This record gives sequence, C-alpha cells and structure tokens, in this order.
Amino acid sequence: MMKTRGCCASICQCFFEYSTPKILVIRSFKVGTLNRITQALVIAYVIGYVCVLNKGYQETDAVLSSVTTKVKGIALTNTSDLGLQIWDVADYVIPPQEESSFFVLTNLLITLNQTQSHCPEVPKTGFDCTSDRDCKVGSHDTRGNGVQTGKCVYSTVDKTCEVLAWCPLELDKEPPNPPMLADAENFTVLIKNSIRYPKFNFNKRNILPYVNKTYLEQCVFNRITDPDCPIFRLKDMVTEANEDFQTMAVHGGVMGVQIRWECDLDMPSSWCVPRYTFRRLDNKDPVNNVAPGYNFRFAKYYKNGNNEETRTLIKGFGIRFDVMVFGQAGKFNIVPTLLNVGAGLALLGLVTVVCDWIVLTCMTKRNIYNEQKYSYVDDFQLLSNETP
Amino acid sequence: MMKTRGCCASICQCFFEYSTPKILVIRSFKVGTLNRITQALVIAYVIGYVCVLNKGYQETDAVLSSVTTKVKGIALTNTSDLGLQIWDVADYVIPPQEESSFFVLTNLLITLNQTQSHCPEVPKTGFDCTSDRDCKVGSHDTRGNGVQTGKCVYSTVDKTCEVLAWCPLELDKEPPNPPMLADAENFTVLIKNSIRYPKFNFNKRNILPYVNKTYLEQCVFNRITDPDCPIFRLKDMVTEANEDFQTMAVHGGVMGVQIRWECDLDMPSSWCVPRYTFRRLDNKDPVNNVAPGYNFRFAKYYKNGNNEETRTLIKGFGIRFDVMVFGQAGKFNIVPTLLNVGAGLALLGLVTVVCDWIVLTCMTKRNIYNEQKYSYVDDFQLLSNETP
Amino acid sequence: MMKTRGCCASICQCFFEYSTPKILVIRSFKVGTLNRITQALVIAYVIGYVCVLNKGYQETDAVLSSVTTKVKGIALTNTSDLGLQIWDVADYVIPPQEESSFFVLTNLLITLNQTQSHCPEVPKTGFDCTSDRDCKVGSHDTRGNGVQTGKCVYSTVDKTCEVLAWCPLELDKEPPNPPMLADAENFTVLIKNSIRYPKFNFNKRNILPYVNKTYLEQCVFNRITDPDCPIFRLKDMVTEANEDFQTMAVHGGVMGVQIRWECDLDMPSSWCVPRYTFRRLDNKDPVNNVAPGYNFRFAKYYKNGNNEETRTLIKGFGIRFDVMVFGQAGKFNIVPTLLNVGAGLALLGLVTVVCDWIVLTCMTKRNIYNEQKYSYVDDFQLLSNETP
Repeated sequence: MMKTRGCCASICQCFFEYSTPKILVIRSFKVGTLNRITQALVIAYVIGYVCVLNKGYQETDAVLSSVTTKVKGIALTNTSDLGLQIWDVADYVIPPQEESSFFVLTNLLITLNQTQSHCPEVPKTGFDCTSDRDCKVGSHDTRGNGVQTGKCVYSTVDKTCEVLAWCPLELDKEPPNPPMLADAENFTVLIKNSIRYPKFNFNKRNILPYVNKTYLEQCVFNRITDPDCPIFRLKDMVTEANEDFQTMAVHGGVMGVQIRWECDLDMPSSWCVPRYTFRRLDNKDPVNNVAPGYNFRFAKYYKNGNNEETRTLIKGFGIRFDVMVFGQAGKFNIVPTLLNVGAGLALLGLVTVVCDWIVLTCMTKRNIYNEQKYSYVDDFQLLSNETP
Repeated sequence: MMKTRGCCASICQCFFEYSTPKILVIRSFKVGTLNRITQALVIAYVIGYVCVLNKGYQETDAVLSSVTTKVKGIALTNTSDLGLQIWDVADYVIPPQEESSFFVLTNLLITLNQTQSHCPEVPKTGFDCTSDRDCKVGSHDTRGNGVQTGKCVYSTVDKTCEVLAWCPLELDKEPPNPPMLADAENFTVLIKNSIRYPKFNFNKRNILPYVNKTYLEQCVFNRITDPDCPIFRLKDMVTEANEDFQTMAVHGGVMGVQIRWECDLDMPSSWCVPRYTFRRLDNKDPVNNVAPGYNFRFAKYYKNGNNEETRTLIKGFGIRFDVMVFGQAGKFNIVPTLLNVGAGLALLGLVTVVCDWIVLTCMTKRNIYNEQKYSYVDDFQLLSNETP
Repeated sequence: MMKTRGCCASICQCFFEYSTPKILVIRSFKVGTLNRITQALVIAYVIGYVCVLNKGYQETDAVLSSVTTKVKGIALTNTSDLGLQIWDVADYVIPPQEESSFFVLTNLLITLNQTQSHCPEVPKTGFDCTSDRDCKVGSHDTRGNGVQTGKCVYSTVDKTCEVLAWCPLELDKEPPNPPMLADAENFTVLIKNSIRYPKFNFNKRNILPYVNKTYLEQCVFNRITDPDCPIFRLKDMVTEANEDFQTMAVHGGVMGVQIRWECDLDMPSSWCVPRYTFRRLDNKDPVNNVAPGYNFRFAKYYKNGNNEETRTLIKGFGIRFDVMVFGQAGKFNIVPTLLNVGAGLALLGLVTVVCDWIVLTCMTKRNIYNEQKYSYVDDFQLLSNETP
C-alpha cells in the first residue's frame, strides 16, 4: 500500500515538475547597454519589417480574375489598291475575341486576288536562275513561297524559278511609314475585370460602385482626372509606357496592361481599388534590334464566279495588349501572427549568443563572469592526473 | 615537450566539451499544471494544424496542365432575315480553338450585306443635323460608325449626317429575348485535361482509367450519378453556378470551369481525381449593372459578282467558358518535416517564457523561485556604495 | 531626495541588467564527440542545403514574360477533291495569332460546298429508319447533324432520317494516314520571348546580344550546335519529346515548349540564358486511349451567284504548341539571409535536446550530470511529510 502510494507520488511529482533554466544576471553599464541595444534592434526589425511592412499578421490569398475587353473606334485608309476604306472593330481586332488579350491592327501589307497558280518567285538569293536547269521540280524550302515547277521565268527584272503558290506573291517590302491605320491611336478599349479572393469570399470589379452609365459613356482614363474610368485610349496607354504610338504602330509590338489589386481586407472594402500600369513587353533594345515588332499573316477567302477560291492575304502589323491581373489580399489571422511572433522570438535568442560572446571574451571582468556562468564536470581530471 | 602536450590537451579539452544549461526544477501543483497545459496546447497545435491539416511533412508541387475542349450540338433559328437556319459547332464557336477557353455564341444581332458606301448615321445625340452645315467633312469620333461626308440626309425619321462606312449600319438595339440560340443549353462539351506534377514525375488525365469509349460516347457529367464523366452540358454548368442559362444567354457572360487536383501522393494514385466546380466570373451585381454581359463584333467577308467586298456583321452575345486548373500534390520528404518540427520546437520555447512570467510574478512563493533561479554579478555595488 | 535617487537607481539597475543562462560544461570524450558530430551535421545541413543548394541568402522574384511566335513553311497536298494545293502560314495557323500558343494544322477532313438544305443523316445507330414514322419532325440531339424533317430517305445504302443541316454532311471517317500536311515537319517557328524580373528591374530576351540578323536568317535550334537559336523546326521539337512527328500529326496533339530562365543575378547577367525543353502535354497512354489527339471544326464561308451562303467545313487535326515560360531570379538580400541563419540556429537548439537526452539517460555517470544540472525547489516535501 505504502509502495503503490510512493510510486504514484513519484509519477505525480514528475508530472507536476516545471523546468526553467537558471539565469545569471549581470548588472553592468556596458553589458546592459549592449544587451538592450541589440534587443531593440531585433524588436524594431520584427515589428517594423515583419509586422508593418510585410503585414505578417495577415493571412493572404492570390487573386482570381476574369477579363473581357471591347475596342471602339474607326479608321480611314486611302490606298491605290483599295481606295477609300473604312476599318471598324470587326476588321481590325483579330481574332475577334481572346481570353485576356486583344490585338489591334495598325499597319498592313495587302496582297489582293491570290489564287493557286503559277508565278515567278520573289527575287531573293537562292531563287534566281538563268535556265530551267537551275530550278528543281518539287523543291520547296522554308524561305520560299511555293513549290518549284522546274521552269525559269522572268520576274520583275531578273529571271527566277517559277513556283506553284498563292499567286501573285506578296512583295517582300517594309511596312508603310506612317502606318496605315494611324487613326488607331484614338481607339478606346473598355476593360471589364472581375476579381475574387476565394479564401475571404470577396468579389469586386473594376467598374466601381459609384460609376454610372452616363459617366461610363463619356469617360476616358486619365491618371489625374479619371483614375477609375475603365476605358482607355490606346495612345494614352502607349504614352504611359514611354513609347511613341505612331513609331510603335509601324512594326507593331506587345503592350502589357497591368491591373494590380492590393487589398487590405482589415480596412473598408472600398479602399480596395485597382491600379493600372502600362509597360511595353517586347524588347525594343536599339543595340540588339533583330526581328523587331509583332506581325502575322492572315487571309480572307472568297470564291469567284467559276467556283475558284481566291484570297486576300494580309500581313498585319499591330499592337497586342496583354491584360495581366496581379494582387494579393490580406486579412488578420491568428496562425500567421503566431508564426511570425515565434520567428521574432527565435531571433531574440540570437541576442544572447552575440552578447555572451562579447561579454565573455572582450570585457575586463570576463573572468568573473565566466566563473559565475559556467560550472564544470570534468572527466579528464583523472585522465590528466594519471598521464605523466 | 610537456608544454606542447599541455597545449594539445587544452585544445582537446575544448573540443570534447559539451555545454548544457543548468536547470531549476520547480515541483508544484499549480506551476506544473500550468506548464503541462501550455505544452499540450502547443503540441496539439503543431501536430493538429501543421502536420495533419497542412501536411507539413510533405514536399509540395504545383500542377502543370494542358486543356483541350470540344463542343457538340446544333441549334435552329428562325428569323425574317435568314429564314430557317441550322447552327453547328463551326458556326457558333469563335475563334474555333483557344488555349484553355471556349466561347459559345448564344444570341446575335446580324447586319447583312454591308458594303463600303455612304449612308446616314444612326439617330443618336451628336449625329442629328438640320442642314449640311451641321456635318463636318472628315470628322469621326469613337462613338460614330464612319467618316462624315459633310452631307445631312434623311435617316429613318430624322435627318442625320451622312457617313462613309460599312452600310447599312448596324441598328443600335437590345439583343433578342429569348436568345436566338436558346438550344445552346443542350450543347455538350468534352474537356480533356492532362496534368503533371514534374517534381514527382506524376502524370494523370481527367479521363480516368476505368472510363471506356462506350461510356464516353453517352455519358453526361452529373455530380451524383456521373461525377467522373468529362462531358458537360452547358446548362448544367450554368445551373451549378446558380445562374439561369436562358437569362445569361441574352447578354452573354463569362463562366469559370474550375478543375481542382488535390493529390496526396503518399496515398494510392487512384485517389488523385479531379473535382469540378463552376462559377460565374463576370459580375452581375444588379445594383451596379453597367455594361453587363459579354459580346463582340465579327464579320464574314464575301465578294459579289462585281468583285466588290461585302460582309455580314454579327454582334455576337455568348458565354465564354474559362477552364482553370488548380491543385497541389504533396509527398513525404525529410526536409520540410525537419523544418516544421524545428518550428514547432521553437514554439515550445514560448512555453518557458509564458510560465516564467507567471511563476516569478504571480505565485505566492515567487521570492523563493527568484532566489533559486537568478544569481547576480553586480558591478553597481561599488558604485552605489560610493555615491552618498 | 534620497528616495527618488534610490528609485531611479533601481530602474537603472533593471535597465542595465543582462540575463544569461548558467551553463554546465561537461568535459568527456563520449559526450563531447556526440555533441560535435550532431553540431557538424546540423551546420552541414544548414550551409549545404539551405545556403548553397536553395540559395537561402537570396531574395527571389518570379518571371514576367511576353511571347510572340511566327511560323514559316509551305506544304503541298494532292487530293481528288482539291487537286494540287499549296498551304502557307495564313492557311494552316488557326487562329492567326494567340497569346502564347500556336496551332499548326497537320491533317484534315474537308467537306466542300455545304449549304443549308435537306439531306439524309449519316448512317449511325439512332438515325436509321424504315418509314417516315421513325423520324420525328423537329427532333435533334447532340449526336446528330441537323433537325429532322420527318422524312425517311435513302442514304448511301440504308434509309436514314432526313435532316435540315449544312448539306452534304461530313462523313464520319478516320483522318488520312499518312497525314495530309506531312510537310509540316519541316516548318520552323521563331519564338520571341522577352522576360522581366520586376523586383530587380532586369530585362532580357531570348534573342541573345551576340545573335545578329544574318545568323537569325539561317539558323535552326540544335541542342549541341545552335543552343541559342530561337528558331525551332517542328519535327525537332516533337522528336526531343520522344514522339514521332508523322504519327502525332495524324490525330494531332498538344506540345509544351518550356522556356526556363533560372538567373543568379549575383553572377554576370550574361550567364542568365533561356533553357528550352519540349514535352508532349496531352496523354497518349496506349492503355487508356479514349478520344486521342486534338482536332476541331472550322469553316470558310462563301456566297454563290444567287447570294446563297455556302461553306467549306474543315475538321482540322493538328499540333497545338503551348509556350510556357518559367523561372526565378535570385539576388543577395540581407532579410532572407537573416531568416535562414535564424532558422539554422534554431535547429542548433535541437542538438542540446538530443544530447541532453542521451547524456542524462544513457551515460554511466548520468547521476553526476543530473546532480549538477538540476536544482530542485520542492513544494511537495511538506505535503509528502504531512500525509501519513
């Protein structure tokens, strides 16, 4: 009976034990000041950087976004090929819809009435010939426009190999300068962007609550006067990226429209508003200016009276606008708060390491401190005494 | 000789030293209970939250995904302009392929036989006139449809400025309600999604191994009866997002098809299956209902007998489905396990801080504890004695 | 006066206090060796894994990227329907431009001269009939091609229900093998990729500074001889992914072009170069080969002499190339360095826990160590004495 009781008491004793390290307190001007300064630095870092700047007390969530765009505007061109021609949104936005990007045609080389037939290759190294023997039937390489028929025929000036291709061939020339659709600078685009922070069940869109139909019908984004208008003039976007629209329009390019939603959801939700910035994304480094701009070829297909297919080939130069939506929302949560406080306290442990090293090696009274701080159990004593 | 030996021994001594803090063990009901409770809380947090819920012992990898979609179905429309007309996938999916998104036309305003010619502007504020003086030659703004010729002519009722444009102009009216392609609700879409977790060299696709050709030819996704069928009825997707298909089809909109692959690769790989959810992505907030829905204009180009270009302009309303693939895979790895255990132990350090504070300031026997825990080296003693 | 002074001194004393734990140093071969080995392991882990492998001393940034692509090449087909036909980039890239992806047509089923009219359904289960009673006026399901007119008419061999549809209907047959545009393997694509690390204001593009116009006009990417040429032969990309181009071209598929920019910005910026890898993204698992490949339908619309709309329907099989840009840049920064050193030191705390446990339970002299390390304040003494 007594024994059981003793055993039980021993387990109890063990359970109700609390271990705390024994501490040596050094009271000294120098050491104390050193200690407090180091502590202050660490605490300032933890509070200032981790808590205030990085908002370490908040749980964060990444943005989910959906973007739709709608371009408006008309352009007038006057060429010998086409005469006076009007271009509207169905003509210059290609393809008519994309997920989060839109392309506006600003310049073009047009080749009318192409049919599958025979014609001389464009004069270029590798395609010129003097007789039929220089042309190989069936030969076609990636730089050519068709399959050689084996004949050598007169092109504009020189003789080149005849090819089976969409004829007449597109002439290999520079795009017009000034660009054909110079009017594109006045086109406007309405960008509708709905975002969602799923963790916080928070939805918002870039047409802010106070924006009504009347305002939306006549406003144009301006960083100072209309910072919340979601309608952007193309020229303004390009100008904000420190580019010249007319220069960029000649060879085309890629623009980034960045919408940033940084939301502190501990604050009123009306403070969570989109910030727009614009950048040119493709490189226009003048030193390394190989293959500049952005262009692609597309065609419109027709059938003529004889049920024969003809097409209009267009080499289109233009600006692609990629809409990129960024952002992070934060809201107070106990878990990241604990984690960051814990990490801060761990750094406070560094203070002891640094101070100990200074106190025990540099201070004049280091011997006294050492004596008090350290006790020794020495297994070598016996060893040392035994060895002669 | 002896000296070298002594020096060597001293270095050895230093190397074979092991420093461990001296501990004061307090045996007390109150203090012990407090200590154990705090420890239990921290350990429960570390095990429960970090290890079980957050799977802190796993290395994670983000999903790489490829999506292809294929819509099926036909719709019948009957209008005065077009007569009885069949719409199939080549007609209503625009553009015919996109990277991870597809658009289904559900409603449209059609303007037939447009040519580049002269016609009066649509009656709208800013375009009405009484005489030619009200119209400026060459003027065109973003809200207009063409370039003014300077003439003032009779439109339907009122006089408006004449423009050079694609004529006849599109009439500015509301889209038909009910929507023209109301049949679109029965269209189905096969979504093929292959995913990859590169770190773990794990591949899978949403057509699960047991799904055979026969099943795939007749199944339709249903959360209860067919949760693994990758063929979705458009109406079902919209209904799951708590929207009405026919209402949404009138003005169009954007739907998100979310495919979530949460995979615990410590478990059998057959447990790693996709979960489908559907959300409406564009805002349909009735309070702030400016510029609702989703529409864009596109055209089909023809050439008539005189080699003159005509086009059919279509203002297409429809639903864009954005397929979004999410997910994270986790697999046991020693590095994150160590990191999380380390962080947990660091939090245990907090226990001592909290308990110390309570023990040394609140307990009745705090003086005894203080006496035992702290020793002092006091540099001020001399100082204090000297000052009067 | 004295009292204020005393109080002041007491606060001073408190401020200038420095607390450091009292340490028991055990000098022993076994314990010391154990201690040093554990310490060495932890330090090796921290330095080796965290600092060298994971570059824990660097702040990192994710890549922002813009991609444009341009395909070149021509293909020749010879079919009974179309005769000899040349296909160029405007014919086989659909749609003509996309954000970071491009599709190349490699195979097709073509149905010419479709008009909205009446024709028998394709012979397939569910559409065959013996008399008009088997066909329901107005019925159309997702597997059919049109709306039934209620008549039962002769198809090729059997009787099927007549439908209002784009007639003649597309025949349900396998794609040609070898693929029609077999020449596509020699097409090349120029991929222009500009990246940006916004945190470090670092821009670069995949056309490296030394690449000039002459080189760019004739080079083709080759992992050994031309690893920096941004022009890729389609066949080479597919071959690198361990696939056969001609096989893949029959049913189509999805290829991933991965561009990895791993940049250590503490090193010269010329070391930051793109690495290209190629993978097949869609599953071609032979066991689970349901719905293989990638295809979609699109149409070209014409108007004939009677102003009636006709179209050419194309079921296009082909390879979609998704360009994926990855990467992370790192640069030295004091904040992550501190964090990682802190975490490392926290792990050193583990050493004491492990060694203490071994020393105090396994060593022969554990009683001596215990005696020296622990002091006790025992509240139970009285309690134990009192209870009989």
